[in-house]
Amino acid sequence: MTSVPAAPPARAYRRLGVQERRTQLLGAALTLFAHRAPDDVSIDEVAAVAGVSRPLVYRYFPGGRQQLYEAALGSAAEQLTLCFAEPAAGPPTERLSRVLDRYLGFVDEHDAGFSALLRGGSVAETSETSTIVDGVRRAAAEQILHHLGRGGGPGEESAGPRLRMMVRTWIAAVEAASLIWLDEAKQPPAPDLRGWLVDHLIALLAATAATDGETASVVAELLDHETPDGPAGRLAALVAPVAERAAHLLPPG
Amino acid sequence: MTSVPAAPPARAYRRLGVQERRTQLLGAALTLFAHRAPDDVSIDEVAAVAGVSRPLVYRYFPGGRQQLYEAALGSAAEQLTLCFAEPAAGPPTERLSRVLDRYLGFVDEHDAGFSALLRGGSVAETSETSTIVDGVRRAAAEQILHHLGRGGGPGEESAGPRLRMMVRTWIAAVEAASLIWLDEAKQPPAPDLRGWLVDHLIALLAATAATDGETASVVAELLDHETPDGPAGRLAALVAPVAERAAHLLPPG
Repeated sequence: MTSVPAAPPARAYRRLGVQERRTQLLGAALTLFAHRAPDDVSIDEVAAVAGVSRPLVYRYFPGGRQQLYEAALGSAAEQLTLCFAEPAAGPPTERLSRVLDRYLGFVDEHDAGFSALLRGGSVAETSETSTIVDGVRRAAAEQILHHLGRGGGPGEESAGPRLRMMVRTWIAAVEAASLIWLDEAKQPPAPDLRGWLVDHLIALLAATAATDGETASVVAELLDHETPDGPAGRLAALVAPVAERAAHLLPPG
Repeated sequence: MTSVPAAPPARAYRRLGVQERRTQLLGAALTLFAHRAPDDVSIDEVAAVAGVSRPLVYRYFPGGRQQLYEAALGSAAEQLTLCFAEPAAGPPTERLSRVLDRYLGFVDEHDAGFSALLRGGSVAETSETSTIVDGVRRAAAEQILHHLGRGGGPGEESAGPRLRMMVRTWIAAVEAASLIWLDEAKQPPAPDLRGWLVDHLIALLAATAATDGETASVVAELLDHETPDGPAGRLAALVAPVAERAAHLLPPG
């Protein structure tokens, strides 16, 4: 439905159910918060985009902009968490590539809001918004650990501290890369960034496997599912000449 | 000088120069902000630790706790930035290890304050505090690029976007790892964490070199300065068996 902020048509005022109206207002808020910093969005604009009156917005969100922001953020967080779901079948790096494509699509769609939220310094940030963001990070970590076979679900082992730290650290790196990507006018193209983020996790898994027995077992299991023409195979082929440059560091033979 | 909060001795009130007094008050504030969230520190406590009266603190910091917090943060940021300085001599991974040791020492010493600052959700966080933190991140990135020979200083090349993104992303990963480390009662021991963070950067350099020509040149130059018994040599030896598990991904021969 196209919004007509200037002169809302009469039918925008038709009676909606409470849940339906709430969803409509949240949708309008999300559209605005996606592309601007929370402090730059007014209740009047939300009302205009939703094609309703300002008092109606306050009836649903008596806490005004802050309450609307937190509700919109919660709704965006749910949406993002859904992006992480991926069947545990096929080469793991290809599963990860699909999840990252959806994640980067979300970042692209919520650019300014994503950036303002994670950058800090806005008055709209509270312990409530921090809790929502941390929940998304936790969900992301759980999904990745699940695909590593260490999700701790029924019949599944739990990850030890090093593997868990590795995953959470990589998620922080992905967040940072997303913010830089937004700053740099979404360059490189999303598929290149996704490829590099997958390479980053493969490299980190290999380096962590060097000193952590659990990660070494996980990597051995994962490699059985990889193919020469998938992301892991491509990276292995491209890293081989780099590794040759390090031959002088290895014991002879 | 040991502080005597209960009954400040007369000499604590001796006339200090303006700069000397300011430094003394900042020192007291830093001690308190290091181990607690900014919202939990009161001006009365700062006065007690410094052994001065509450009005004296306000004379120097009329903006009260917020101004004192920003000044203490600025002073901590300077201190941390000094940790990054390292002569450009010897194996690069050993230089990095020394910088990380100093950095982790700083994190250890400012544990609760470091955590509260980077975690968000405090009312003491403003665009001013975000600017200070971003300045430290930028200084860290510049130092690393300088040691990679791409610092952009006089007679030095500037890094391209991929290498720059790689460095900034790794810095975000280090920050995240530090916060997890503080959450987990500073486990693993600092030298283990430092070793893993160095491995992380080496792995990321290798993976990025696979697809970025500039990073490949940087890695080739760096490898010339590494030794078999340094961090890069140790990692190469430990990663070799992991890499063998990936042999089926490589073309035969």
